[in-house]
Order: sequence, then structure tokens, then C-alpha cells
Amino acid sequence: MKRHLAASAVALMGTTATAQDVSTTVPDAVSAVSPALEHYSANVTKTVWNAESLSMRDRSLVTFAAMVTRGEAEQLDTFTALALDAGVTPAELSETITHLAFYTGWGNATGAAKAMAPVFAERGIAAADLPGASPELLPLDEEAEAARQTMVQDTYGMVSQGVVDYTEEMLFRDLWLRPDLAPRDRSMITVAGLIAAGQPEQMTFHLNRAMDNGLTQEEAGGMLAHLAFYAGWPRVFSAMPVAKEVFANRSE
Amino acid sequence: MKRHLAASAVALMGTTATAQDVSTTVPDAVSAVSPALEHYSANVTKTVWNAESLSMRDRSLVTFAAMVTRGEAEQLDTFTALALDAGVTPAELSETITHLAFYTGWGNATGAAKAMAPVFAERGIAAADLPGASPELLPLDEEAEAARQTMVQDTYGMVSQGVVDYTEEMLFRDLWLRPDLAPRDRSMITVAGLIAAGQPEQMTFHLNRAMDNGLTQEEAGGMLAHLAFYAGWPRVFSAMPVAKEVFANRSE
Amino acid sequence: MKRHLAASAVALMGTTATAQDVSTTVPDAVSAVSPALEHYSANVTKTVWNAESLSMRDRSLVTFAAMVTRGEAEQLDTFTALALDAGVTPAELSETITHLAFYTGWGNATGAAKAMAPVFAERGIAAADLPGASPELLPLDEEAEAARQTMVQDTYGMVSQGVVDYTEEMLFRDLWLRPDLAPRDRSMITVAGLIAAGQPEQMTFHLNRAMDNGLTQEEAGGMLAHLAFYAGWPRVFSAMPVAKEVFANRSE
Repeated sequence: MKRHLAASAVALMGTTATAQDVSTTVPDAVSAVSPALEHYSANVTKTVWNAESLSMRDRSLVTFAAMVTRGEAEQLDTFTALALDAGVTPAELSETITHLAFYTGWGNATGAAKAMAPVFAERGIAAADLPGASPELLPLDEEAEAARQTMVQDTYGMVSQGVVDYTEEMLFRDLWLRPDLAPRDRSMITVAGLIAAGQPEQMTFHLNRAMDNGLTQEEAGGMLAHLAFYAGWPRVFSAMPVAKEVFANRSE
Repeated sequence: MKRHLAASAVALMGTTATAQDVSTTVPDAVSAVSPALEHYSANVTKTVWNAESLSMRDRSLVTFAAMVTRGEAEQLDTFTALALDAGVTPAELSETITHLAFYTGWGNATGAAKAMAPVFAERGIAAADLPGASPELLPLDEEAEAARQTMVQDTYGMVSQGVVDYTEEMLFRDLWLRPDLAPRDRSMITVAGLIAAGQPEQMTFHLNRAMDNGLTQEEAGGMLAHLAFYAGWPRVFSAMPVAKEVFANRSE
Repeated sequence: MKRHLAASAVALMGTTATAQDVSTTVPDAVSAVSPALEHYSANVTKTVWNAESLSMRDRSLVTFAAMVTRGEAEQLDTFTALALDAGVTPAELSETITHLAFYTGWGNATGAAKAMAPVFAERGIAAADLPGASPELLPLDEEAEAARQTMVQDTYGMVSQGVVDYTEEMLFRDLWLRPDLAPRDRSMITVAGLIAAGQPEQMTFHLNRAMDNGLTQEEAGGMLAHLAFYAGWPRVFSAMPVAKEVFANRSE
């Protein structure tokens, strides 16, 4: 409780998130059952969140995406507040759960919405302030999209025409073109979700796309190190060979 | 709250589930933090749930199975009511969680039971109305089962005799023969669970079994498109090559 | 409620966990919505938990680890009590969630801490009784660690130096050397976590390490059979080929 108040106080002061704020995400129960875990948590707060490879704003967004993907709604209010304090806009968080509804399942997004709503309400963020259903979309590279669609149609049309059609209409001609989350960020949370969900087999396309849209190799490496803590070491080690191959192919 | 009342009202009127009912599964928090997600949810309700490839009854059962597999107990009361309204019987839902206890872990089934119990109580569904512990089992194809058992014994007997024995006794000579969930439905929820859990490597056997027991290729394709929303796009795209191979092998 | 009281009564009597105690982990809702699931649960309690391949103490620790990995916090209070009754020490449980923070994600450990804290409080287990942040570490095989570090540095240094550095500093020169959970147990819960998370691709190293540290082949096979119920059959069947190969390579 005390910790939560401290977090709110920081928010009221209008400061952006610092390593100190991140420490508010460790509940008191941790120190009660594992002083060691509390110690490591403090270390993560101080060291990992401040590592130069990735900005604190990106870390808070990546952590938020991993938690949504893992269905960790219980702590998501705290991490929503942290992300907002770190400079992620309400519009970006709103777009993030919408994006992850498609990429990690509707139930995760719905659960996230329930956790976020009180935080948005407290801060006076209303639905009218958030991206609407039909904004003006970003321009589409029609040629690249036609090639993608032809490939997927040819490969999977006879398996499930529904999947092929929804993928074109809802994802690549709509969701990915929504303007209130930058393509680089949209890809970054997609990759974070794939790592957190244990799906390295789907990562090549999206990590390349993220880097095409501005995510640097250093940031990708920083995201892997960050997610080791929030998705678990084995998830990251299963993603490492895929990242290695993507990096190698891009440097050729 | 208003939405929930609407759902109950529909139930009291004894109508079966329609696309309108499905909209009751979207909590108010969604519109508060993401008008876009609310918009997409309405689209899923109208378009996806009414697509001809799969009946609404099957969609509600597949969604229920995916949510149990993903441990999404929080919304399971709503989806239990939806499934009952869509024509899934209480006995079938009861068998579904029992089946998924074995196929997606005991804790998921236990969590589902807690979410379902109040809905069953509200509707006056008592334990005495539900399938008992030892019903008269469906006939077993002894030859096919002997072949399966010999194969598993030879392959894994020295790894874990316990797994081999439990698989025979509890699954193939008991659970799969329980009469209150049709073999086609039992296989359908197993495949839905495997897709939702991200285990395409276990899907070949069960998708073939589902189709042997009456699931059509169009229904299987419809299930993949439906699960894109409830399990997330990447889960479905990892399952597509397996489905493609199963379909191809069956059409030879 | 009645079941919960029975469990406490057993605890007060100072007895260790028996098959009877395990039955307290089945909530009343199960019998309300599925008499069959209640029947199977009783069977699991009587047969599986008493199988000779693995001690009840190990079973309770493996189950606890699987539940933490799967994010099943809701029932974790009951299974915390069960593990303590079965002879797992508070220090070992404390170390277990700290270990799993790294191996299955911080959120799982945090959620577990919240579920465990009331049980520890009820039993008068205070933070001061638990392992501290910086105990005297077990001796390190410097040669083996240097070889491991060189291999990982060479393979992944250019992908994410952060992952490589954190792995050495936090895991292999710290966490794995903490003395209050035996190396055999630390590896056992790691393997249980990998099976429960569906990551057989990461299992070879850790199962070998577990067996190097004293886990017998019979116990490993017993753990697989046990986890079939708590992680689901498909998770175990995906792990079986890996275990088979590890066993075969070790017997050469």
C-alpha cells in the first residue's frame, strides 16, 4: 500500500519514470516470502532498467506487452502507470492492447483493459481522448502487400480461406496502418509478445520488420536481455538463435 | 453490468445464442481504454461468429476450450452462459473440462469449474443431472488400441512406464470412451486446446482423429480462423502447416 | 471450506502430507460441475501421488513448480501448505520461487509470493527465518563454468551481450550456487518448469544437470508421469523424446 502511494505521488509530481519508480512494482509479499527475490528485484530495477541498450520508455512498453501476452493482469495496473510515467502515451497503450488482441488472443487484451481502466480513470484519460475506430490510415506499400497476400493465399488458401482473408483485411490493410502507434513500436511489441509466448518460429518476419522500421540491433539485443527477466531465461534462449540469424542476414 | 443483465435476459427468454449475445462478452472496460478494440470486437461478433464454416454451437465450444487451455477463468462464466445458450449441453461442458484436465492440465479444469459453478447453479443444473464417474463406455476398437499401445510401450516404456500405463488406462480405455461428449467434439476441443497451447507438434494425430470422427475440412478451417482471434494469430499460423499436411495426406 | 479446515487440522497435528491431504486440493466447485472430474481427481490423489517412482515430497515440489510456471496463483496457497506438510522446508519454497523468477518470468514469482505470504504468516514463518540475499555460496567448478561462458559468449555475444553477462553473473555465479535448495532440487524444478512451459528444446542441458546432481532415471520418469496431470498430456509427450535421448546418451 505504502509502495502504491509512493508511485502515485511520483505520478502527481509529473516526473517521468526512473529506476526508483520501477521498484514500486515489487509487492510487499515478495519480501515476506523471499528476501532473496526482493534483493534480485532491486538489482533488476537498478541495473537492467537503466542499461543503455534500450530506453526506459521502450522497456516499459516491452514489459507491458510481455505481461499482456502472459495474461498477467494482476500487476498490469502498476505497469500501466509505470509506462505512462515513462512517456508512453495513453493512445499508444490503447493501441498496444488492440494490437495484442490480434497477436496474443482476445482474452489477454480484454483482461488488460480491465486492469488499465481504473488507471486511465484516475488520470482523467477518457475514451474521447483515445484513437477511434477508423482513423486515417498510414499509406500502404501496395506492391509489398500484394506479394505477401499472394504468398499466403497460395500457401494457405485451401487450408483456411478465413484466416487468409481476415489476415489481409483486418491486419495488413487495417491494424498495421493505424497511425497512433509507430510501426517500429508496433513491431517491437509484436516481437516481445512472440518471445513471451514462446513462439520463436514466428519471429523472423516480425523482427526484420521491426528493424526495417527503425529498431536497432542494439535495442533488439537490449529487449532480449530485458525479457529474460519478464518472460524467463528459457524463452529468451529459444529466441536467441532466431535473432542471431536475422542479424546475420541483414548484415550481409 | 448492463451487458451482463442483457445476457441473463436472453437466457431467461430461452432463445439460443445469436451474434447479439456474443457482444455481451465484451466488458465495458474495453470501450473505456480502447474504442478501437471495442470496434474490432463488434466486428468479430458480427462477422466471425456468423461465418458459415462453423456452427455457432461449435464456435462457442471451441472458444470455451481455448479459454480453459489459456487459463482465462475470469471471463469463463460469460462464455459458459454463451455456450449453453448456443446449444452446448451442460453434460457436454462438464465432459469438456474433464477432458481438458488431462489435455491441458488439472489446474485449468479446476479453475474452469470454479467459474462454471455459479452459472450452473443459476440455471438449476445439479450434479445429479451431469455425467457420473462410471457411465457405460462407448465400444473400443481393440485392434487399433492394441496397435497404439504397443507403439507407445515400445517407444517410451523405458522412459516412463507411468506415462505409458496412465495413457492406456485413463485416456484410451476410459476418458475417450465416455459417451456424453461425441468423439468428434472430444477431438475438436483437443485440437482447439493444442492450437491455443501452442503445440502444433501434437496436432497431427488429433486432427486426423477429429476428421475420422466427422469434423469436416471446412469446419477445421473455420476453427483455425475462429481461433486466430481467441488464441492469437501466431498460434494459428504455427498450426496452419500441420493442418495443410493433414488435409493433403487425407485427400491422397 | 470444510476441505480447507481439514487440511489445517492435519497441519496442526504435525503429520506429514498423505494422499488424504492431497484430496484437499480439489475445490467443491469440481463436484458441482463435473462428478467425473471429481472421481478422476480422487484417483490421481490415491494412485499417482503414491506411486513409488517419486517421493511425495518431490511430487509436491514438482507440482508447486509447475503451478508457478503456469501462473496458477489461485490454488497456490493450498499447494504451498501441501508442500510444507510433505517436508519441503520454507527455505526451499522461498528459493524455489526465486529460482523460477529467472526461469519462468518475474511475474510468476511475484504472483506466487502473494499466494504464499498468507500461508507463511499463518505458520509463523518470518522473513528472518528465510535465506538472505547473500548467503555463502556453494563452490563453483570454475573450469566447467569457464567453458560454458566461453561457449555462450562466442555463440551469442554479438546478439545480446546483456543476456550473456546476466547469465554468467546472476545465474551461474550466483543463483545456482545458493545453498538453501540442493542442486538436484534446483535442477528438478527447472526441468518441471520447462515441461510445464512447453519448452522441451531447452530440456537436455537441465535434465542432464539434474541427473548429474542425483535425480535418478526412475525419478525423472516419475516426474513425467506426475506432470501429465498438472501440465497436461501433450506437454509431457513433447518432453518424452528429449528425456529418451538424454537417458540413452547417459547409458552409453
